[in-house]
Amino acid sequence: MASRALFAVTAATALVLASCSSTTNNSTTDTHTSNQQAPNIIFMIGDGMGFEFISAYRYAMSERGAGKLAPTPFDDLLVGAATTYPDDDTWVTDSAAGATALATGVKSYNGAIGIDVDKNPKQTLMELARENGWSTGAVATVQVNHATPASFFTHHPSRNLYNEIADSYAQQVTNGGWSFDVLLGGGHSYFQREEKNWLPQLEQQGLQVVTTIEQLNNVSNAPVLGLLADKALPFAIDDRPGRLAEMTTHALRLLEQRSATTGKPFALMVEGSMIDWCGHANDIACAVHEMTDFAAAVEVVRNYMSENPNTLLVITADHSTGGLTLGQGGEYAWYSEKVMGIQKSLEVMATELVKRPKSEWRDYLTPVLNLPLSDAQWQQLESVTIDESLKGRDKLKSVHQVLVQIISEHTRTGWTTSGHTAVDVPVMASGPGAEAFRGYIDNTDIAKALLRLVR
Amino acid sequence: MASRALFAVTAATALVLASCSSTTNNSTTDTHTSNQQAPNIIFMIGDGMGFEFISAYRYAMSERGAGKLAPTPFDDLLVGAATTYPDDDTWVTDSAAGATALATGVKSYNGAIGIDVDKNPKQTLMELARENGWSTGAVATVQVNHATPASFFTHHPSRNLYNEIADSYAQQVTNGGWSFDVLLGGGHSYFQREEKNWLPQLEQQGLQVVTTIEQLNNVSNAPVLGLLADKALPFAIDDRPGRLAEMTTHALRLLEQRSATTGKPFALMVEGSMIDWCGHANDIACAVHEMTDFAAAVEVVRNYMSENPNTLLVITADHSTGGLTLGQGGEYAWYSEKVMGIQKSLEVMATELVKRPKSEWRDYLTPVLNLPLSDAQWQQLESVTIDESLKGRDKLKSVHQVLVQIISEHTRTGWTTSGHTAVDVPVMASGPGAEAFRGYIDNTDIAKALLRLVR
Repeated sequence: MASRALFAVTAATALVLASCSSTTNNSTTDTHTSNQQAPNIIFMIGDGMGFEFISAYRYAMSERGAGKLAPTPFDDLLVGAATTYPDDDTWVTDSAAGATALATGVKSYNGAIGIDVDKNPKQTLMELARENGWSTGAVATVQVNHATPASFFTHHPSRNLYNEIADSYAQQVTNGGWSFDVLLGGGHSYFQREEKNWLPQLEQQGLQVVTTIEQLNNVSNAPVLGLLADKALPFAIDDRPGRLAEMTTHALRLLEQRSATTGKPFALMVEGSMIDWCGHANDIACAVHEMTDFAAAVEVVRNYMSENPNTLLVITADHSTGGLTLGQGGEYAWYSEKVMGIQKSLEVMATELVKRPKSEWRDYLTPVLNLPLSDAQWQQLESVTIDESLKGRDKLKSVHQVLVQIISEHTRTGWTTSGHTAVDVPVMASGPGAEAFRGYIDNTDIAKALLRLVR
Repeated sequence: MASRALFAVTAATALVLASCSSTTNNSTTDTHTSNQQAPNIIFMIGDGMGFEFISAYRYAMSERGAGKLAPTPFDDLLVGAATTYPDDDTWVTDSAAGATALATGVKSYNGAIGIDVDKNPKQTLMELARENGWSTGAVATVQVNHATPASFFTHHPSRNLYNEIADSYAQQVTNGGWSFDVLLGGGHSYFQREEKNWLPQLEQQGLQVVTTIEQLNNVSNAPVLGLLADKALPFAIDDRPGRLAEMTTHALRLLEQRSATTGKPFALMVEGSMIDWCGHANDIACAVHEMTDFAAAVEVVRNYMSENPNTLLVITADHSTGGLTLGQGGEYAWYSEKVMGIQKSLEVMATELVKRPKSEWRDYLTPVLNLPLSDAQWQQLESVTIDESLKGRDKLKSVHQVLVQIISEHTRTGWTTSGHTAVDVPVMASGPGAEAFRGYIDNTDIAKALLRLVR
């Protein structure tokens, strides 16, 4: 490639330029010295949260045509962007390789949980923190044994080994070598399986296990395992907006308390897990509501930081999902108010529709979609074939696809894939050490900077 | 919207948080004092260059599977992102409102050139610079009377008034009140029209007019108007990669020389104009080559800055175009090497195909596309209907659309629109005053910070 050779920055030029640039990544990470207590670390990961999702959230919170934007908790946090490619034959990462990079500073193959391409376990941020006496925790809206939280606490050759990942957490506890003080999310069904119920053993070890967010009010100290749903929690749009903020509030309370006892900082990972799921489903209303849920958790953290300034907040995404864009079909428009008028996730809508005779679809959908469907669009819906031999999500697929298309046409939301994309993701940071995350960096550099703080 | 009220940051909270954040936008813009010479300003606009285009460029320059990325001139420049919405009933800006915001600090309606929503002319960065004795210039790969350059020098109610915009530039010269010293791009046919040929009058005023990049070698001082094509220059992939870097080199030489005479700084706007055009065409190879062309110009500027450190570089985009994403159809992949194998723009390909009998299409396309088309894809191409009654781009549309689809399937490039999107765009900066551009900012804030430096 001649053009590459011609235009690539030579090493020498880069060196000269780095010295005159105000935005190099070479700033010293360790702003804390040996005299100064290392800061608490709060690492928030919006799973699938590309720049587009932040833009969509901001515009959805604002009034179109009003000439100004609503403030968001992200507004003064952005410091740069991260590349997310895995150590694989593709530029597009999955959440396992993405989380492994963010947890260990090592790139791996898609599917890897806390191990490198040679399947060697790599020490994670939480393991190192624990080793050095820190308190640790994680909060997610999916099952705690899902790829992102799992990569911060366990080591497995495949993200699909859900039972084995649950067993890893449990064995850490029963062996007395657990790496978490607070772990909140879904996943009850993996810890209480037909062939193996870990819960009595865990409680015997002094681990409090709760199954509702309300029960956390009665938990006055760590350690605690919250298994708040069989698998993932319901989508925020369908059930309980603010659930991530509630869990984060409890996690901060319990970690702060434990830290006060140990005299050491804490490290907390908070995942807005289901932004990604809405992206996979090409469901824009779902995605904006998950962003709202994530933003509320960011606000909880920022309020905590205003009282506890020796706290570093880093926010990023593992990748972007769905190929979301805010423009579709040639029109120069994105109708945020139409997105906000939608009342349910596509999963709930499709589930409700396939239960009903088609004669009832219009009555069900009209108040839920809140969109002026054309006759052609109603006909398009009514002519969907539902294969009754299929089960679960497979059965929903045909009607789901038509709903995506109709909503895209009305709201001008674009999607290009049911998977992930290779586009760089936002990096936000605030607090002591935040300057280490400026500019274009790699996802592994985020982890490396955090690991240096914990060391 | 209850969720908005619940989760929006209150003004009070924002105030507290701003004081503890290391990334607020409140840093003082004017780092130069009255004792210190204001820096030269080089404002580079990648028209349509959303974050996705930077990612695509970086991955296209790198080797997939090699485990590391090629360096790019952007790598240590990123400081934040900008919102781009116009003062209109849509979140999606066009290039006229976008450039007006970037040139004047005032949002306007889509189509506006240097005027506000009430159609009042607003002083532009270049006009203010000129008023204060600075040297000024602009470089573009489209006609100099196109929306982006026009918004820095003229005031018109519609971007479509191409002749009137050319007349504005010319009248500035003949009136002796011209706002530019160097203006390079296309647009010859607008200055030498059947009913009006401005060129003799312009030359009479001492303005050197050139029509090829080579002629610039013989231009030893400003003022100069380069009209290097009838309308836009050809795409970089088709004709002359590095053209923007060549023009930028000449512009810097001539502006620096004039500045040495006046003892005042210069302000230069450099537009990578046709990134946007490739985006509108959903043409990924074209877009990556325009990015390469733009990156080479960035490198020219960075080399200039290493010799002339009192220079501020700001790079941004007016919007993102095409709804580009690097992932399509569910596969976790983006085949950068396949993109780099494509030899021509879709416009050239489609133009060549419609000239030929379909029996020759395979021979023409095989070496140009460099993709292993399936039998079904060849059939899809051969079954395209070309309406011979249509002319120009309209005639190319049907074959163009099929080529987009085939290339997307092979390279896994996603596009969602032939227009623009509302997604936030990158902001990069280096040099004195660069800290004013950090974090999330609005496109008008970029202009306001630059205008403060010129005042």
